[in-house]
Amino acid sequence: MAVYTDITDEELAQLLADFDLGGAISFKGVAEGIENSNFLLETERGRYFLTVYEKRVRREDLPFFLELMRWLAEHGFPCATPIADREGRLLKEVRGKPCALVSYLSGLSVRRPSVAHCRAAGESLALLHEAQQGFPMRRENDLGQAAWAPMFAPLHEAAEGLKPGLAAVIQADLDLLAAQWPKGLPEGVIHADYFPDNVFFQAGRFAAAFDFYFACTDALAYDIAVALNAWCFEPDGSFNVTAARQLVAGYETRRPLSDAERQALPILAHGAAMRFFLTRLHDWGATPEGALVKPKDPLEYERKLAVHRSSPDLVLFGRAA
Amino acid sequence: MAVYTDITDEELAQLLADFDLGGAISFKGVAEGIENSNFLLETERGRYFLTVYEKRVRREDLPFFLELMRWLAEHGFPCATPIADREGRLLKEVRGKPCALVSYLSGLSVRRPSVAHCRAAGESLALLHEAQQGFPMRRENDLGQAAWAPMFAPLHEAAEGLKPGLAAVIQADLDLLAAQWPKGLPEGVIHADYFPDNVFFQAGRFAAAFDFYFACTDALAYDIAVALNAWCFEPDGSFNVTAARQLVAGYETRRPLSDAERQALPILAHGAAMRFFLTRLHDWGATPEGALVKPKDPLEYERKLAVHRSSPDLVLFGRAA
Repeated sequence: MAVYTDITDEELAQLLADFDLGGAISFKGVAEGIENSNFLLETERGRYFLTVYEKRVRREDLPFFLELMRWLAEHGFPCATPIADREGRLLKEVRGKPCALVSYLSGLSVRRPSVAHCRAAGESLALLHEAQQGFPMRRENDLGQAAWAPMFAPLHEAAEGLKPGLAAVIQADLDLLAAQWPKGLPEGVIHADYFPDNVFFQAGRFAAAFDFYFACTDALAYDIAVALNAWCFEPDGSFNVTAARQLVAGYETRRPLSDAERQALPILAHGAAMRFFLTRLHDWGATPEGALVKPKDPLEYERKLAVHRSSPDLVLFGRAA
Repeated sequence: MAVYTDITDEELAQLLADFDLGGAISFKGVAEGIENSNFLLETERGRYFLTVYEKRVRREDLPFFLELMRWLAEHGFPCATPIADREGRLLKEVRGKPCALVSYLSGLSVRRPSVAHCRAAGESLALLHEAQQGFPMRRENDLGQAAWAPMFAPLHEAAEGLKPGLAAVIQADLDLLAAQWPKGLPEGVIHADYFPDNVFFQAGRFAAAFDFYFACTDALAYDIAVALNAWCFEPDGSFNVTAARQLVAGYETRRPLSDAERQALPILAHGAAMRFFLTRLHDWGATPEGALVKPKDPLEYERKLAVHRSSPDLVLFGRAA
């Protein structure tokens, strides 16, 4: 929600001099992305996004993200494509920070997804999983199950501050997840952050997805689990089983799940809720009071965790479909 | 630099239903404007800006600003034009806040204006002063000379915190400005905030001006004085007399100054520096620590005040031209 890096007209002209895109006609910082600074750029050749990578994204991961976006766009998945400069480079630098120019995407994110949006989200996620096949690079999921216990270690006090008694409940969750975490499921490159605000619709249909900066190699079904948490809860905290069923059914129109994947969905969804709870809990304490970028409320995911903890069968809707 | 109001896809669709602009294709919060929230909106008919007025802009002033923008655009001054809904209304509401749709402007602001940019700024300011002639509405300058002493009254401590001894110096300035403030100069609607970041250039030429939310009725020459402070100081704090001469010369290609206006420029420039010093000093104390919107440094204008205080003749370059 904020632009951290400030770029002058002169710095922009210097960057554009390496490309065949003509001069800048318009340049605006957009209030999108917490990890990066994003600018809408219009040149004599067209419209683009300029993303400047702030400290939260590791520089050594950028080639993976940019090559992945290029690969997906070339393999039929609608997403922003990085634009190469005259020497073929995708990763550039401005004001001493890494940056990339990517193609412009039209569309709007939905704030409150309908059941139809959930179905389209599932189908588009399967399209992404098809398109990533054969992508030659690999990136470990550094926010995956193995990372959760170490992430929580310094956050017990923060959890207690949120809700007395919560630390022990989370610790029990973590033990359960460690004991039951599924192994051997089909893997590939997953988006790992497939939330409604990272997906564009146009006239009710899926248009594009973006923000691949958590993409990594992990179980494909874990990507569905992240999406179930992100798309299928009502504002009152209840889990919408119809929406979830449609999200999975949409996915399966392109890539049917194996029995093992289907059986794993409840524990994967429990784990995915843990991953977002933990990063939000961390950010909650780390953000200065009065900052305009409000950290996302960790309690939203604490409530989702409670749903998965108390009724894991809810996510087993696939059986009844 | 920040979006305060968050608008959902549903709220946007509801707003657009009152216009003949088709459905939304793209909608992005832009990091522009401290007083308002601004969104770049693309519909099936074209590109627009949606401005949502936050609490700093008084609702009763909005008709003046919107009618002025419409008048200026209709009288040959390139600026954003408010778009009327089907019932002819310019002022709309979203999420309980007043808002307006205005036409999209291309161009880039310059960070470090050249002498040529200063000349173009002066010429465009005269074009604005020509275009405003005959505009039937009036708005008092609530940040004009009469307001400065009351504004400073609660800020003595803040001034001392900035620089020990400063409060007495500012008080002496205020006494001098009250005693010598020129009266009877030609009046009209002035922009009152004609800074480089409110002006777009394209290929080195003036393209458009925007942000009319300080516009008011006051001495036309005071607008030049604001611009001299905003455009003609170097980053090291020195006053660039060549740039200032060119700004005034550019202005006079369209509207020659009277002797009284020219003689008044030094005191008007001193006063204009006071106005921005005082509002920045106020905002400096009022912004919470750690906020992402950094308040502008009042010391920048303290240094400009010192220049006007010690060598008022500097601004009398017009004599030598």
